[in-house]
Amino acid sequence: MTRELTQFTINGVTSGYWHVSFSNPPINLQDPDTILELQELVGMFETDDALRVVVLESADPSFFINHYDVSRAAETPVAPGPTGLPTFIDTTMRLATTSVVTIAKIRGRNRGGGSEAALAFDLRFASREKAVFGQPEVGAGMFPGGGALERLPLLVGRARALEIILGSDDFDADTAALYGWINRALPDDQLDDFVDTLARRIASFDKPALAEAKRLVNRRTLPQAEDLVETQDSFLDAFTWPTLQERGARLRARAAEVGPEFELQFGHYLVDLGDQ
Amino acid sequence: MTRELTQFTINGVTSGYWHVSFSNPPINLQDPDTILELQELVGMFETDDALRVVVLESADPSFFINHYDVSRAAETPVAPGPTGLPTFIDTTMRLATTSVVTIAKIRGRNRGGGSEAALAFDLRFASREKAVFGQPEVGAGMFPGGGALERLPLLVGRARALEIILGSDDFDADTAALYGWINRALPDDQLDDFVDTLARRIASFDKPALAEAKRLVNRRTLPQAEDLVETQDSFLDAFTWPTLQERGARLRARAAEVGPEFELQFGHYLVDLGDQ
Amino acid sequence: MTRELTQFTINGVTSGYWHVSFSNPPINLQDPDTILELQELVGMFETDDALRVVVLESADPSFFINHYDVSRAAETPVAPGPTGLPTFIDTTMRLATTSVVTIAKIRGRNRGGGSEAALAFDLRFASREKAVFGQPEVGAGMFPGGGALERLPLLVGRARALEIILGSDDFDADTAALYGWINRALPDDQLDDFVDTLARRIASFDKPALAEAKRLVNRRTLPQAEDLVETQDSFLDAFTWPTLQERGARLRARAAEVGPEFELQFGHYLVDLGDQ
Repeated sequence: MTRELTQFTINGVTSGYWHVSFSNPPINLQDPDTILELQELVGMFETDDALRVVVLESADPSFFINHYDVSRAAETPVAPGPTGLPTFIDTTMRLATTSVVTIAKIRGRNRGGGSEAALAFDLRFASREKAVFGQPEVGAGMFPGGGALERLPLLVGRARALEIILGSDDFDADTAALYGWINRALPDDQLDDFVDTLARRIASFDKPALAEAKRLVNRRTLPQAEDLVETQDSFLDAFTWPTLQERGARLRARAAEVGPEFELQFGHYLVDLGDQ
Repeated sequence: MTRELTQFTINGVTSGYWHVSFSNPPINLQDPDTILELQELVGMFETDDALRVVVLESADPSFFINHYDVSRAAETPVAPGPTGLPTFIDTTMRLATTSVVTIAKIRGRNRGGGSEAALAFDLRFASREKAVFGQPEVGAGMFPGGGALERLPLLVGRARALEIILGSDDFDADTAALYGWINRALPDDQLDDFVDTLARRIASFDKPALAEAKRLVNRRTLPQAEDLVETQDSFLDAFTWPTLQERGARLRARAAEVGPEFELQFGHYLVDLGDQ
Repeated sequence: MTRELTQFTINGVTSGYWHVSFSNPPINLQDPDTILELQELVGMFETDDALRVVVLESADPSFFINHYDVSRAAETPVAPGPTGLPTFIDTTMRLATTSVVTIAKIRGRNRGGGSEAALAFDLRFASREKAVFGQPEVGAGMFPGGGALERLPLLVGRARALEIILGSDDFDADTAALYGWINRALPDDQLDDFVDTLARRIASFDKPALAEAKRLVNRRTLPQAEDLVETQDSFLDAFTWPTLQERGARLRARAAEVGPEFELQFGHYLVDLGDQ
């Protein structure tokens, strides 16, 4: 029943500490397969009694988990998982409730659905020089469908969540840390050591202590499942909006015109796509 | 039925983007008319289909919206608005729920009820050199009556909200940004460009996307209307407190003694007004 | 019925402003007596009509209130207080609801149960050079039992609360201020003046204004009593865990081996205590 993982590679540093690397060339888009594989991964976390901590990193220095591949939106998996919730919601809620501690170590662009995946991890540490964050959905004619609308306000407050979401622009790691979007921004040459030291530390602790502490924190800090479901339903419905279809066409035209630079500066190129 | 606006001037930069300037000489007090005009303004935001973003600024470099004119507290409008809530609460709740994105661009003093008006806007950007924030009500013998008790803890947490409210002192923009009271403090000579760029960006986006994103964020991030009503009732009742009447007399005597400097350094002059 | 205070010394600076100094040599552990005395103190705050503000400091420059003395965990007082809640929960909830404003002025280590006591104060100001914060319980095989699991997420958000609690490491005051764990970090030579000025200011304000403002802020900002009770019950039960007993033995062996430096660098010495 388990799915072969092709986008995620697991390197068990020790039995209690896994490194997971994400790779989906050419630009590390989050696609329907990413969601299904991430769900498989969470199942592995839940059933490995020795595992205490997982660090997720990207194989591509320019992109962490990138935004959703909207060309495949129709394939978005929605089959209920073990929680009874649709696939991606099931996955992110189980990331929160597994007793394994999950850490996203972020270099490169981390936008849209990929940012929402990172938001479902317990801790986020990012490279000051190389990480870029964004929820560009509104600028692309839709809105975040996978948890940013629920998790960002809990971390950064309403005003900054609205700035991020309604402004749809790119943010550097220092601003993300000031806002609380990530735990810390670290100089790129210190990031690996910092996260590795923290992960080894946590891996040396007792599972019952980690599990009970995380369970008790979770009582009042998680988004409501019903909100996540309402948002996803509305998000999938938005693909029928005429405004989205028109803007999407203009966005694809601009992307073709600009070339690879488009994805590197996504936030920048979203402005003034309205009818001319 | 619509009220002529005398304190607010609307300059439509484009059909989707309005600049609104506030002016109520000599020191930009928030008074009963300010509340009624602000309520009118919100009605205009709600009914203009082309409008996407509004930037509020002050015509007076020394004062943004200043504190409430307590000499006119008895005139405070409380007639239920379209939401069924009293005037100012109706206004601030509708600022939150309108699909138009509202931005306060703050230079000068922004205290008391004027700070509470700014807190009802979606985003707040302020001049590092020229903005001053304060909730001086407790130092003046009463307490914030128009939303600071509800909105500040959501933005800055209980401890910093209590520091701001119980300490009743002035805060500079950098501290306000560190606390999350405002989105960002910017160098004064960059503030106009930063806010204008963000507003033009948002104005270029689709209304359905902006509206649905804001609606979904609003589900769990707004204060409870019943709390705002309880606070306003208690606030209006406080004007009968003997301690407030005594302190108010001493405050007015000190203001007369100090002159115009009093309003510039309001926080500073509140201390040691107790009976000598 | 009142208990003689031996660990806390009250110096009434004025009738409205008390300085309270904590001393429990040799390393200022929080022990069962500390909890009972703190409960007595809160009762004094509640019944003194003139009192407006209390500043708590430590007599020991190296330790503020230190972690709990787990060797005396079996003696932990749990008799219901006036709120009907167990002793420490009764005490911390009454610290939040008393109309007296409580300020923790922190120098030295403030970890574990002592950090949880500080978290129950209204405001926290700390020395940039001399304060150290930690919730080291998970690293010691258990988890915070006295409020950190409930109060930290409200102040710093879920991700940073999990970093603090699951990482169990020491934090400096600047990081604590960035996260919102404390109100501000101040240079050590400015801390006393800053806190004294704020306390004298608050002491000059009217009690009805302070009390009503604090009451209204408290409506939505306090942890749930039922959560605090569930956590304490689980915490006291954890002392029967075999994993805790084994790790506790290794922790005591390492402490004996390292000597006094162990308590100064508690966070550092918790790593790699697992079975070798």
